[in-house]
Amino acid sequence: MSDPAMQLRERLATVSDLGAAAALLSWDQQTYMPPGGAGARAEQLATLSRMSHEVFTADATGALIEAASDAVSGLPTDSDDAALLRVARRDFERLRKLPSAFVADFTRTRAQARQDWIEARKQADFGRFLPVLTKIIALTRQQAEYLGYSEHPYDALLDAYEPELRTAEVRTLFAELRDGLRPLIAAAQANAGAVNDEPLHRGYDEQVQLQVSEQIIAELGYDFNRGRQDLAPHPFCINFAPTDVRITTRVTRNELNMCLFGSLHEMGHALYEQGVPVQFARTPLARGASLGIHESQSRMWENLVGRSRPFWRRFLPTLQARFPQLNDVDSEGFYRAVNRAQPSLIRVEADELTYNAHIMVRFELELALLEGALDPVDLPAAWNAKMQAYLGLTPPDDAVGVLQDIHWSGGMIGYFPTYTLGNVISAQLYGAAQQQQAGLSDELAGGEYGGLLHWLRANLHAHGRKFTPRELLQRITGGDLDAKPYLAYLGAKFGELYG
Amino acid sequence: MSDPAMQLRERLATVSDLGAAAALLSWDQQTYMPPGGAGARAEQLATLSRMSHEVFTADATGALIEAASDAVSGLPTDSDDAALLRVARRDFERLRKLPSAFVADFTRTRAQARQDWIEARKQADFGRFLPVLTKIIALTRQQAEYLGYSEHPYDALLDAYEPELRTAEVRTLFAELRDGLRPLIAAAQANAGAVNDEPLHRGYDEQVQLQVSEQIIAELGYDFNRGRQDLAPHPFCINFAPTDVRITTRVTRNELNMCLFGSLHEMGHALYEQGVPVQFARTPLARGASLGIHESQSRMWENLVGRSRPFWRRFLPTLQARFPQLNDVDSEGFYRAVNRAQPSLIRVEADELTYNAHIMVRFELELALLEGALDPVDLPAAWNAKMQAYLGLTPPDDAVGVLQDIHWSGGMIGYFPTYTLGNVISAQLYGAAQQQQAGLSDELAGGEYGGLLHWLRANLHAHGRKFTPRELLQRITGGDLDAKPYLAYLGAKFGELYG
Repeated sequence: MSDPAMQLRERLATVSDLGAAAALLSWDQQTYMPPGGAGARAEQLATLSRMSHEVFTADATGALIEAASDAVSGLPTDSDDAALLRVARRDFERLRKLPSAFVADFTRTRAQARQDWIEARKQADFGRFLPVLTKIIALTRQQAEYLGYSEHPYDALLDAYEPELRTAEVRTLFAELRDGLRPLIAAAQANAGAVNDEPLHRGYDEQVQLQVSEQIIAELGYDFNRGRQDLAPHPFCINFAPTDVRITTRVTRNELNMCLFGSLHEMGHALYEQGVPVQFARTPLARGASLGIHESQSRMWENLVGRSRPFWRRFLPTLQARFPQLNDVDSEGFYRAVNRAQPSLIRVEADELTYNAHIMVRFELELALLEGALDPVDLPAAWNAKMQAYLGLTPPDDAVGVLQDIHWSGGMIGYFPTYTLGNVISAQLYGAAQQQQAGLSDELAGGEYGGLLHWLRANLHAHGRKFTPRELLQRITGGDLDAKPYLAYLGAKFGELYG
Repeated sequence: MSDPAMQLRERLATVSDLGAAAALLSWDQQTYMPPGGAGARAEQLATLSRMSHEVFTADATGALIEAASDAVSGLPTDSDDAALLRVARRDFERLRKLPSAFVADFTRTRAQARQDWIEARKQADFGRFLPVLTKIIALTRQQAEYLGYSEHPYDALLDAYEPELRTAEVRTLFAELRDGLRPLIAAAQANAGAVNDEPLHRGYDEQVQLQVSEQIIAELGYDFNRGRQDLAPHPFCINFAPTDVRITTRVTRNELNMCLFGSLHEMGHALYEQGVPVQFARTPLARGASLGIHESQSRMWENLVGRSRPFWRRFLPTLQARFPQLNDVDSEGFYRAVNRAQPSLIRVEADELTYNAHIMVRFELELALLEGALDPVDLPAAWNAKMQAYLGLTPPDDAVGVLQDIHWSGGMIGYFPTYTLGNVISAQLYGAAQQQQAGLSDELAGGEYGGLLHWLRANLHAHGRKFTPRELLQRITGGDLDAKPYLAYLGAKFGELYG
């Protein structure tokens, strides 16, 4: 019989393969599945989830982790083998706390919730979603109890997406951001006419938009031999191996920015996954460190790169070659157009400046739901009140209000803060890259991004999931989460545009 | 704890879900997967196959089958519950006869064979494929020994695809077909100029071809709410549930028949699977009775319906509306064009008349290989000799000869006869439908197919896999396999076209 480390790897490979199969079922569900397939798909996903959970949380896995520990006890903590065991143990201990029956119930409920949410949003009818959402919230609270926490039940949920981060830290970070953003948003509202985004709304053939977006992301380094782009109502990046990392986007004739920045955003996620070493395949190391770190990559390419002046000095001619109706716009005009910032109702269409307010609304509502301070039936009213407070807007109906996001139907409470964490971290890493790599600032100013990708590959992507987000930030920047670089970036950019 | 029958259903549902997941991975592999994903996909499929085999062949499954037997002992044999137990027991006993070490070896060998076959065909180099093919044949003979047989080792293999059919019966059937087909093929060769298929080769936009094929199969009853059509190099039908049955087709600008009849063929398979009762979902009853019965459905819609005069009287205007370059062709001319019959080298491109000769070549070679009468090294020469004898053609190289089919690299010896069985059964069922359903012949003569589908739904599709092919034929036609209706159909059709 092979040694315990080898046996553990085989077992983790089985779990990874089951997870990859489930991921493909999910990809298909959101791209090509015919409507009639939904019920059977829910059952299939529940079974894969249950099998994966059973194999991974079996006593035998725990015994192999213990037995394999001896073999790595002499290795440096940053070695691949030591990291693999550390991550496997962490996942094992977390999942062992969840009974299989609970996991299967949660999976089935989520599948049902997905369907109910789609219908509810279509009809702008929150009541259609309320029963299953109530069950989702109850299951989520139950999950927090199973997982355990010392300060706040939300800590247990957050930990699934952003290991080791505590709710109290998010509160502090968000308070600093809120104070820093308030004057910037106020200035943008006061000078709304300063930026004109008319060039984005001239009508652009959808197929050509998709082709141009694929041309641009290929030039930036997305490997179409190990990925593809499809259409989906809600863009996402998903991977079945470092050699098969797919993205989806959406396209609207009269909103040129939607497909373009959707593709750039998901490409940022995908570059991370495509950069994970192939030898990590079929192990729990073969993915990003956390959702916040992941989002730092998507936001960096979408915003810090994609909404910069040098980017459009380089790529506007690419757009104009396919869309001659843009020939009267110069790169400065296009730069301004894609950076128009105004309060709006829909998070995924929000601009860079007001985006974080949407996250704060959701974070505060999730805390209230978890704490029992907010009854799910009162969610629409609470949503609308917070939207008014943060952005001065009230949704005309729930479809563009409380029903707009897919997350709660997926049981993903504790997820939203990672979007804003990603924004914060993107600025930290962008700064660190320019400090550490000679000549990089000049390259970026010239619209050259190969050096940036190279630095990210070496300093972040190559580690996969070996380190926690905190460890990674420490290794790369020498510090912890810090809102200042992000606020400085936003202040300089939007101060100039709307100042 | 629930009763044994319920527990057995749950276990079978798990196996079914794992199979559905594997099917989706395979669908994706053949439609959308980027090239880089191939290696990881092979691992994922191997894992799902292993998990499914482990769950299904576990001692616990056998114990549940025994325990559940009491509950159904008083039920009529054609009840759903009795059939489910019968089919589950049959599958269980068959798979339990194969030692797990043998299954693993066969799986590894097939994976190797697939790679070697692809290379060998690319280079038209049979020697590249010979070593692994020799091993495949040895393993196949071994498999027959494990499974057991009373007359011929080929019986044990055939049984996997066409339960209970014996090799001797195939020999008798094929001999009758051979004698009946010989003068028809000779007449077609002697009067090759009698049928002109020029209208098929005028150049037709691929996207429009796909749209027209989808319009036609939707009108015939394919439910796009529970299915979809995509492109694949080799057309196939695959199902993940009776509520999600997908087909693929291929399209060539200058071969109008390829997409059209590819779609009709796969639609025939899909109508069968979409017609399986939804309450059979997640059980081994939720699919067709055998490959031969399945092929009877694809061939019926492709040939007996799709290559008939009434079909084109109805649908030629549909084609002409999208392809005005066909306006000078009348339905009689189009009917003749799609029925051109001439000997050719490639099975999957063969016409309705000469197709079966390709199957007979393969059947006779498989028997000789199994019996040890033919050494694998002599296979190319034997192939070419039989092609000359049956069709008067000798392949210029092995890529378009002995290496053309994927089946042997997949260990699928015993599969080919089911294609011809499908042809034979299609004519039996088409005749039975017209005898049993008043007015159906007139409907068919008028290009109306709703009544045919209704009859197939009630008499065949509704049974799923409850009965063996022989039981089904007995129930429906009152008799056994019979070549005469098929020969009568071909004789009338091609006697007129080429007489």
